[in-house]
Amino acid sequence: MRVLVLGGDGFCGWPTALHLSARGHDVAIVDNLSRRGIDQELGVQSLTPIPPLPQRLAAWEEVSGRRIDHVDLTLGRDFDELVELFDTWAPDAVIHFAEQRAAPYSMKSAHHKRYTVNNNINATHDVLAAIVESRRDIHLAHLGTMGVYGYGTAGAPIPEGYLQVTLDTPTGSAQREILYPSDPGSIYHMTKTQDQLLFQFYVKNDKLRITDLHQGIVWGAQTAETRLDLRLVNRFDYDGDYGTVLNRFLIQAALGHPLTVHGTGGQTRAFINIQDTVRCIELALHNPPQRGDRVAILNQMTETRRVLELAQMVSRLTGAKIAYLPNPRQEAEANELKVCNDRFLALGLSPITLADGLLNEIAENARAFSERVDVSKIPCVSAWNAERAAAIGPLAVHAAE
Amino acid sequence: MRVLVLGGDGFCGWPTALHLSARGHDVAIVDNLSRRGIDQELGVQSLTPIPPLPQRLAAWEEVSGRRIDHVDLTLGRDFDELVELFDTWAPDAVIHFAEQRAAPYSMKSAHHKRYTVNNNINATHDVLAAIVESRRDIHLAHLGTMGVYGYGTAGAPIPEGYLQVTLDTPTGSAQREILYPSDPGSIYHMTKTQDQLLFQFYVKNDKLRITDLHQGIVWGAQTAETRLDLRLVNRFDYDGDYGTVLNRFLIQAALGHPLTVHGTGGQTRAFINIQDTVRCIELALHNPPQRGDRVAILNQMTETRRVLELAQMVSRLTGAKIAYLPNPRQEAEANELKVCNDRFLALGLSPITLADGLLNEIAENARAFSERVDVSKIPCVSAWNAERAAAIGPLAVHAAE
Repeated sequence: MRVLVLGGDGFCGWPTALHLSARGHDVAIVDNLSRRGIDQELGVQSLTPIPPLPQRLAAWEEVSGRRIDHVDLTLGRDFDELVELFDTWAPDAVIHFAEQRAAPYSMKSAHHKRYTVNNNINATHDVLAAIVESRRDIHLAHLGTMGVYGYGTAGAPIPEGYLQVTLDTPTGSAQREILYPSDPGSIYHMTKTQDQLLFQFYVKNDKLRITDLHQGIVWGAQTAETRLDLRLVNRFDYDGDYGTVLNRFLIQAALGHPLTVHGTGGQTRAFINIQDTVRCIELALHNPPQRGDRVAILNQMTETRRVLELAQMVSRLTGAKIAYLPNPRQEAEANELKVCNDRFLALGLSPITLADGLLNEIAENARAFSERVDVSKIPCVSAWNAERAAAIGPLAVHAAE
Repeated sequence: MRVLVLGGDGFCGWPTALHLSARGHDVAIVDNLSRRGIDQELGVQSLTPIPPLPQRLAAWEEVSGRRIDHVDLTLGRDFDELVELFDTWAPDAVIHFAEQRAAPYSMKSAHHKRYTVNNNINATHDVLAAIVESRRDIHLAHLGTMGVYGYGTAGAPIPEGYLQVTLDTPTGSAQREILYPSDPGSIYHMTKTQDQLLFQFYVKNDKLRITDLHQGIVWGAQTAETRLDLRLVNRFDYDGDYGTVLNRFLIQAALGHPLTVHGTGGQTRAFINIQDTVRCIELALHNPPQRGDRVAILNQMTETRRVLELAQMVSRLTGAKIAYLPNPRQEAEANELKVCNDRFLALGLSPITLADGLLNEIAENARAFSERVDVSKIPCVSAWNAERAAAIGPLAVHAAE
């Protein structure tokens, strides 16, 4: 299969590109290196030392004998170049990771809100319009987020994309299957709900073949391929904007700092290991929707946990203490969350659980690279609104402060 | 009340600005004149001779003794200027018409799709982010569209924004009120469904006060104020992209041409007269949601009709024949449509019906200015996709042709 990985220099894109290349697919990466630019803006770097992309790609060719090309173009801007790339490179599938993906970054200020909306919506729309323009039967697989559903769903488990509802009608009642009503918790998550509407329209109007993968929070950083050579190492973010909750706990534990839980830690979230992410994406590529099918939506997650539970797991393994801080996010203190992931299980996914994989992560990244940590970058300071900023105090970063 | 009218030089914005000014409100128009630029691009002009905006505003001051200022800035780009305008001008309300509003134009080519998405989403988002940044308690009233609902709703009438549904839960069933599931028929309509998600998020996160007015297809062009002086005349579009269905029939009848119905004419749509539009907007301004309320959604329409019915009404009044053409739109041949508009009726709206108002329209615009018509611009040539373009034949305009 010929696969373009949009955003292939990023945290999920890079290990996906390597995984697919290792499995014999022809892969090229489209990336404008914006994620590296944001590191510069924030004054942070990946815990793991990631080489420049050309060095990464040279190392992969050396290690695997397989070549991955890099095309530097900006989605949402270089539209004609994108159409030409589809024409000349002739992908069977396009995997679209090329969006700003940090909720706290998207809430940092008006500038960051505007950048996230503009970047994500125009990037996704350009990919869709370019597929139509190319007249090729390209399968688009997009990284969505569990966050499109919102977290207020006590009761029934969250289905995979579509919800069965009953409506009152003049003659009685009717059953309908609808796109799950969205309730995003940040500007970043909101853009993914807008992406869903773009997909729905292009499937209806142009019969595109689209898979939307609603992914949980990723933990871990390395996969079978990124472990092959230090130059192939995946990025590992621990800062308050891009670091996901478990990776941040691991760093805090490695440094002997308390694990910082925001609010009560009662927030329940869905999780997936990075190795399972890349497996899921290959499974999705091998099982595309047919022309005329609705958008295929799969929940790409393997377990749900409360944030406090995670902190307790890390604490048990490392002896780290737990500290409670005011929450910068505008969200409920606690929520229930049950999620269906039957489709990936049916396709053969055998998940890596936190119970099995956590200890390995602690040794592999957090301890190995802990001397590279800038502790000043660990606090979560991006506040969702003025009230939350006031609760956090002088460290807070917020649009209207 | 101090009211900023974003897009106040356009078809709905101009008569709204005059209506509010005439009723004693302080009004300023924010507009980058993009609609006039699109006239240039398409090589068309309003049937009615609309003077440049400074002349319009000078005429209004002469006629009414009241001043309306114009601020030339581009939403989605001039963000700092917008925040400063909110700070210095101190509006109580902002009415947001500043979006590309023609479905056929939005489907004309990849360029037009990309322009519509970029322009509309960034414009709406800038307004929201600027209200937060200004920290002012501004009521935002936005022109949505009946098209967010889609037209496949046989059975129950379309409610005002929110739908009551029943869900199965582990312990039985639960009632929920959700945002009406969207099913837009064009890129333009799709952007308005994305706007809804922006509004939902900013109400949840920042407690903004927002009213979304889902308007039907507007017919007629003049209001009490635009009739006061020829220099105040409202624009009247009859071209295949911007002309709405009834206004196009009126022009065809005035020229002695057949009324062109696409497909069977079985498409049912919601309609409202332009005079009722401006009344509805003032009613909405006087009845804003409270801080903490969800988005207030009102259906701004007064009757539903099949397209063929409209053609028959015009034919009866004028003797024009009816001609059937292939449909450039990807849509159902026929649909039922019932719509609730209880909220505006309860606020005192007394609608102008087609049965009462149609004859006046024929005399007022179509006949009076018919020598200004460029008949080559009447056909609807923007096709929704390659199949529809093929059905139309050599006139068709489409992205991939």
